[in-house]
Amino acid sequence: MLSPQALRNGETPSPHRRIPTSATHQFHSTVSEQKLRRFNSLILVFRLAAFCFSLASSIFMLTNSRGSSSPHWYDFDAFRFVFAANAIVAVYSLFEMVVSVWEISRGSTLLPEILQVWFDFGHDQVFAYLLLSANSAGTALAKALRRTDTCTATSAFCIQSDISIALGFAGFLFLGFSSLLSGFRVVSFIINGSRVHL
Amino acid sequence: MLSPQALRNGETPSPHRRIPTSATHQFHSTVSEQKLRRFNSLILVFRLAAFCFSLASSIFMLTNSRGSSSPHWYDFDAFRFVFAANAIVAVYSLFEMVVSVWEISRGSTLLPEILQVWFDFGHDQVFAYLLLSANSAGTALAKALRRTDTCTATSAFCIQSDISIALGFAGFLFLGFSSLLSGFRVVSFIINGSRVHL
Repeated sequence: MLSPQALRNGETPSPHRRIPTSATHQFHSTVSEQKLRRFNSLILVFRLAAFCFSLASSIFMLTNSRGSSSPHWYDFDAFRFVFAANAIVAVYSLFEMVVSVWEISRGSTLLPEILQVWFDFGHDQVFAYLLLSANSAGTALAKALRRTDTCTATSAFCIQSDISIALGFAGFLFLGFSSLLSGFRVVSFIINGSRVHL
Repeated sequence: MLSPQALRNGETPSPHRRIPTSATHQFHSTVSEQKLRRFNSLILVFRLAAFCFSLASSIFMLTNSRGSSSPHWYDFDAFRFVFAANAIVAVYSLFEMVVSVWEISRGSTLLPEILQVWFDFGHDQVFAYLLLSANSAGTALAKALRRTDTCTATSAFCIQSDISIALGFAGFLFLGFSSLLSGFRVVSFIINGSRVHL
């Protein structure tokens, strides 16, 4: 029946357990700092992977037009959606990488902590849905195109679209992993009042 | 620095605050029971809405073929995906409605509590992604079909597909709301050791 706020306040008046053995305290704090660093590095790796895949996907889609006679990617709604979603996720992942590097090097978050954990988690969720939706739409269109003349005449166009969409799905996968970790940070923040407590 | 387990245990040895005023205690417990009931009713309403929309969507898709000369829904991958995803979500929502009614009427969960909250949240998340993916794919195919002869010859087929997909999106919306509430239950369970503590 204790509120999380009460718990956070409740932590402060119990230092008598730690003061007697300040060496133990220091040891524990070093261990949890190491864990925090490892956790943040894992997030950074996922962010980097999501950034690379979504950037590659958007570049593959952007360069997918060969002269005026062949079809262009921007003639198709779903391909425009794939490009836009991947570009948005690439920009967002880049920003989150900066945030992550900042946090690892300085030990504090860029925005105020409560804002940061909710910002990360909320945007991860929304952008994961966005990216999945775009890639699914792109897949359906790519499959539908394969039955028409567009693909038989210029098969390179269809292959490049397929590659772009596949890269987008890989980006979604890593964004999903990041979302899990940032969800863990939110829960951890609600319980302990600090973003990571492993 | 307290683990959630410690908190849960920590709740038990502090009844001395409540015993003196058993009337107050009873009042508080009635209030929180009322809130729990209202929370569970809200979940039930969202489940019911998700069930209705996804069932309607799958029925609209299933009945979308008119004789052997016109196109059938099962000729298109994306429409089969729309039907399957909506049917799965309809069955799942029906099961969750039974679980919800059981919980409202008996005051306890069908499965053990920890299993139940994680089961609900996990399945809500996965099925929300599945349904969004299916509906996006369906939308892209429906848009692609509109440029071909299929829609000009038998426009009723395309209109009925559009309706089915729109209903699927409505189902996704309510499944998303349920997912938010079941996520709240998981966090609440982790913090308090009980599924709802408002």
